[in-house]
Amino acid sequence: MKRLALILSASLLLVLALPGLAFAQDEAPTAAELSLAMDTVWVLVAAVLVIFMQAGFAMLEVGFSRMKNVGSVVAKILVNVAIAALMFWAVGFAFTFSDGGGLQSIIGLNGFFLSGSAETYAGLSWSQVPVSAKFVFQVAFVAVSLAIVWGTMLERTKFAVYVIFAVVFAGLIYPLVAHWVWGGGWLAELGKQDFAGSTVVHLSGAAAALAGTLLLGPRLGKYDDEGRPVTIPGHNMPLAVLGVLILWVGWYGFNPGSTMAATTQIADVALTTTLAAAAGVLGAMTMSYFYRRNVDVGMGGNGAIAALVAITASCAFVAPWASIIIGFVAGIIMYLVLMFVDRIGVDDPLGAIAAHGMGGVWGTLSCGLFTTPELAAVGQPGLFYGGGFTQLGVQALGIIACGGFVFLSSLLVFAILKATIGIRVSPEQELDGLDIHEHGVYGYPDLVATDPQGANGTSPRGAVSSGRPAESAT
Amino acid sequence: MKRLALILSASLLLVLALPGLAFAQDEAPTAAELSLAMDTVWVLVAAVLVIFMQAGFAMLEVGFSRMKNVGSVVAKILVNVAIAALMFWAVGFAFTFSDGGGLQSIIGLNGFFLSGSAETYAGLSWSQVPVSAKFVFQVAFVAVSLAIVWGTMLERTKFAVYVIFAVVFAGLIYPLVAHWVWGGGWLAELGKQDFAGSTVVHLSGAAAALAGTLLLGPRLGKYDDEGRPVTIPGHNMPLAVLGVLILWVGWYGFNPGSTMAATTQIADVALTTTLAAAAGVLGAMTMSYFYRRNVDVGMGGNGAIAALVAITASCAFVAPWASIIIGFVAGIIMYLVLMFVDRIGVDDPLGAIAAHGMGGVWGTLSCGLFTTPELAAVGQPGLFYGGGFTQLGVQALGIIACGGFVFLSSLLVFAILKATIGIRVSPEQELDGLDIHEHGVYGYPDLVATDPQGANGTSPRGAVSSGRPAESAT
Amino acid sequence: MKRLALILSASLLLVLALPGLAFAQDEAPTAAELSLAMDTVWVLVAAVLVIFMQAGFAMLEVGFSRMKNVGSVVAKILVNVAIAALMFWAVGFAFTFSDGGGLQSIIGLNGFFLSGSAETYAGLSWSQVPVSAKFVFQVAFVAVSLAIVWGTMLERTKFAVYVIFAVVFAGLIYPLVAHWVWGGGWLAELGKQDFAGSTVVHLSGAAAALAGTLLLGPRLGKYDDEGRPVTIPGHNMPLAVLGVLILWVGWYGFNPGSTMAATTQIADVALTTTLAAAAGVLGAMTMSYFYRRNVDVGMGGNGAIAALVAITASCAFVAPWASIIIGFVAGIIMYLVLMFVDRIGVDDPLGAIAAHGMGGVWGTLSCGLFTTPELAAVGQPGLFYGGGFTQLGVQALGIIACGGFVFLSSLLVFAILKATIGIRVSPEQELDGLDIHEHGVYGYPDLVATDPQGANGTSPRGAVSSGRPAESAT
Repeated sequence: MKRLALILSASLLLVLALPGLAFAQDEAPTAAELSLAMDTVWVLVAAVLVIFMQAGFAMLEVGFSRMKNVGSVVAKILVNVAIAALMFWAVGFAFTFSDGGGLQSIIGLNGFFLSGSAETYAGLSWSQVPVSAKFVFQVAFVAVSLAIVWGTMLERTKFAVYVIFAVVFAGLIYPLVAHWVWGGGWLAELGKQDFAGSTVVHLSGAAAALAGTLLLGPRLGKYDDEGRPVTIPGHNMPLAVLGVLILWVGWYGFNPGSTMAATTQIADVALTTTLAAAAGVLGAMTMSYFYRRNVDVGMGGNGAIAALVAITASCAFVAPWASIIIGFVAGIIMYLVLMFVDRIGVDDPLGAIAAHGMGGVWGTLSCGLFTTPELAAVGQPGLFYGGGFTQLGVQALGIIACGGFVFLSSLLVFAILKATIGIRVSPEQELDGLDIHEHGVYGYPDLVATDPQGANGTSPRGAVSSGRPAESAT
Repeated sequence: MKRLALILSASLLLVLALPGLAFAQDEAPTAAELSLAMDTVWVLVAAVLVIFMQAGFAMLEVGFSRMKNVGSVVAKILVNVAIAALMFWAVGFAFTFSDGGGLQSIIGLNGFFLSGSAETYAGLSWSQVPVSAKFVFQVAFVAVSLAIVWGTMLERTKFAVYVIFAVVFAGLIYPLVAHWVWGGGWLAELGKQDFAGSTVVHLSGAAAALAGTLLLGPRLGKYDDEGRPVTIPGHNMPLAVLGVLILWVGWYGFNPGSTMAATTQIADVALTTTLAAAAGVLGAMTMSYFYRRNVDVGMGGNGAIAALVAITASCAFVAPWASIIIGFVAGIIMYLVLMFVDRIGVDDPLGAIAAHGMGGVWGTLSCGLFTTPELAAVGQPGLFYGGGFTQLGVQALGIIACGGFVFLSSLLVFAILKATIGIRVSPEQELDGLDIHEHGVYGYPDLVATDPQGANGTSPRGAVSSGRPAESAT
Repeated sequence: MKRLALILSASLLLVLALPGLAFAQDEAPTAAELSLAMDTVWVLVAAVLVIFMQAGFAMLEVGFSRMKNVGSVVAKILVNVAIAALMFWAVGFAFTFSDGGGLQSIIGLNGFFLSGSAETYAGLSWSQVPVSAKFVFQVAFVAVSLAIVWGTMLERTKFAVYVIFAVVFAGLIYPLVAHWVWGGGWLAELGKQDFAGSTVVHLSGAAAALAGTLLLGPRLGKYDDEGRPVTIPGHNMPLAVLGVLILWVGWYGFNPGSTMAATTQIADVALTTTLAAAAGVLGAMTMSYFYRRNVDVGMGGNGAIAALVAITASCAFVAPWASIIIGFVAGIIMYLVLMFVDRIGVDDPLGAIAAHGMGGVWGTLSCGLFTTPELAAVGQPGLFYGGGFTQLGVQALGIIACGGFVFLSSLLVFAILKATIGIRVSPEQELDGLDIHEHGVYGYPDLVATDPQGANGTSPRGAVSSGRPAESAT
């Protein structure tokens, strides 16, 4: 209406040959300019939320680690974000989203070092925001996928392994898989549905984690002499749940932001994301209550994460009621897989294989079940809407291809590292904790000081220091 | 350029009898579409900030709890958010905002399971954003109100009570009160002012908290043999203040977001919110300094919260200078009420009754004092602007009606629970801490291990383990 | 103008008897209104991110403090934010951005208590957002600058000093410097480049910190009998890194928000900010590895901060590749300065002088090196683009003038305080920790309880309490 009035009146003005119209044009932006600016604001806000997820992973990993290793955890987070940002800038973004010519089904080959124009990165040409906005948003996704890898390999991995694998993963492994699904590669051509990355981001991270863990082996003390799993609790549930809540908040950038445009759809996506997460908490808590007659804090958090992972693929394609089912089932699956994995000798301190891996698998498949005809922007409606098994088959193929490729390529990288520099710290280092050996400082210097005279060179509270050297030193 | 081209071409099109105008409209969004998209972005961003407040409550409650109970705190947060989201989706949103026909003064009765259209939820028809955006924003408010309930009942409440009360509160109690004020109910008809929920969200939560606490009784050891209150300090001031700062940040979604539209008014609301919070810190700190000659960290935080609660009702209606008075007085009131409540035997670990309850009462009343004629979008100007006592009376009626209803209905629910499953853990559980009994794991497993050999099955630091089993096990 | 054209043309249409057009105008906002609303949303979101940085500083300072002082740290954060907000509202904003008449080169002198109109604050007239939005955004910057001051003066400063200096700094010192650069003062007239405040915010904070530290002297135990520096580790690396990550996230409000308008440029600024931070982590970690053969967690975090500080001045003026160099060099400089400062007897627990001070110097200078001709909105292109030494000279002059003025005026304030009320706590208080003396409560009451019978009046775990009084009391 407004636009019609504007056009009508502008026509009259032109007929009347009123000069100065060009001046009036400088005053206020056009609708296209406003739309572009608004999309940019939204994508950037969403990117910031996703970047904030690094704080969530840091707190989650800290919470589920033992005190002696937390410095290592947070050092790794910082270095990994840094490497991911620079590698994705140098080559990863180009591999993922640019045109690959004859190899376009497999990989992009243009615009390295972010030197391309909007056209160069054809895989993202559907969004009008500047290339810089696209990069900042997408690089946050790589960093999430990379963070997932390490949740499983906590408390026993050499720091150099973090560094080297980050280079390869952010520079090549993730970009390949992302290109297949989001960059116009062969899975995109088949109509694979993965709105915000259940497969690309979460399953990829978990597949690499599984590869690394198999080569690492479990932590010392994780299995008793009869091979039964021993619970090694984390040290700080408040920080773990803070991590879960930060991740939950960050997911409102992850899922709704994947529109890469400011549309009303972002609210619909936020709705399915919210309901799924809520149902995931209850799914996992219900399992915990029936199996163990208690309400396990960590399980509740992992249930939320598994559900958020699962809804990531389908958040823009399914009805709210379906999101509740997807989330609840994700919580249950996570719980069962977590127990199963623990029993077969795979030591996964954070539950990343269960939450991100199986959450990713279930979420990817659930697109093939619940996608409604109205919302199927890509691919076909789901099985429950009469879409048949076609889409489900494509989804399964995507899981096998992406999960399989990341697992095998990561296994190769870790195997080479294992054969050369080694991937695991020495038993002595593991028992003492990684912090003091690799980082020269404890995560909590006041609490784990070993010197009864006080680690800080001051021993003010002598009266009570005899039995409590750590606290007394503070 | 774009605009010039558009205008030129539109002129030609008009000359050619208006064909292809629809095509021109496809090119760039209309002003109405842009406005709708912008409003949706803003409401969603605000919703995310309010959802983030759960992390604030979690940290605040953790910080003010003792170590032995922190796992229980964070488990409760996760489960409560989950229940609130699903109950509000199923029935609460409909009760609150839909039309109730003959019962419209009391409750809405349409559009359960979010099945309605924008018209169904007539109480929110003044905002143009999609129903999904309205829901995500409003559900975050329910979760805040519910979180307030538990701050007072920390460290002694059975987990099942959290679960059952959450169902009733998010499904019925909160929706009724919210309907009266925001859903077109009887208080809305009287012109009650409550921009963002001093009454609806904060006073409601505190009234339920008071009901529960009266039935629970104080924590063991809170009062000595002569009935004098004993200070039971929380265990972690840094996390408590982190919680306060997260809540403060979240309030920029809570208050400015309650415009539910992207207008310049959001900045005015952010301004009053900021100034009030600052004044609240100083009000409480001043009291702390004069009464005890020290600067109590927790009091500063509670002063900020009380002020934020108070300005919530009036943030869009008052001048900046008034917001400073409202905030400063809120900090003082909070301090006095906190000490009073403590002395009369009501054990409120977090100060929620003082901060959210009395903050809510004062904030609701302050509308009737400070609302300016220009900003009185609802109701009348305040007493200080010549509006007389009418609005003040309506505000007081709202406090009594909403506070009273929530208190009595919550008392009924808690009394039924007390008579059936019980609401309080056993003394043994309370002394040992809720974590180990109800959740099977400690919040800080490394620090509160009771087994001198180390809880984790590894005892690497034998040399120092004799006197310090907890640390040595890590 | 746009509006005028619309009104003129609409008048013509009305003459032509088109009814209902006025109604159509009510329907949708104009492009100018949309643009204004969008800018307001963006500036407010950015302001919230910058306000969130207070949580980052709190966690960073907590992490680098010893346990006995953390309550003091967080109390200080709350009070400082409160004072900064109210002082900047009363006088600081007017000093900074209003017209000063004959003293305009030095200070603004109109619009105290935020009483002015948009025209009053001429220094910000280039942004169209409401004055309330401008204030909320700018007040967050003052609070950041003030927070930087205290990172260096941790663990030994009297609480009253925090309070009094905050009044002077937020009310006068910061506003003067900010007026010179951003308020149309003499450095602005010379074309000094400082997009988001490497000089104004960060160097100012660090210069005041240096002044205070020189008068305070090092912490007890920081230097041994031969004057060699002793490492006093902080107590909580996870919270320190949480702080770094929150700051990093907040910087996306700090830098891109400094456009104070929703433009596509915000994404370009976010890109340079991201790449610089990543490079800063690697720069500092590389130094740590070569010098000490370990990967120091704190250094990684300080590297990120130093790089973020450095890119703050130039984020809108330089190419992505240049931002990587600026960040990497900032990480290296920070490391070297941190070690140097430590050795010459300046005890800087948080590394603020190195990270914010030298980061600010390097960032300000780097504008004069890397500013591209296309992006030089203010001043001249940099040396590496053929701009010669002019801009570099202006940048250096700005560093000397701003850094020197803040240092000397802060030195004066601290010296007066030292001569009157004193600025340092007693040795006994310092050894015991500030928490118990100034705040009446420990930051972690459970862990530092000195009473073997349990500080909380309950001693439930008697069986194990003999050797572990702190834990047993919980």
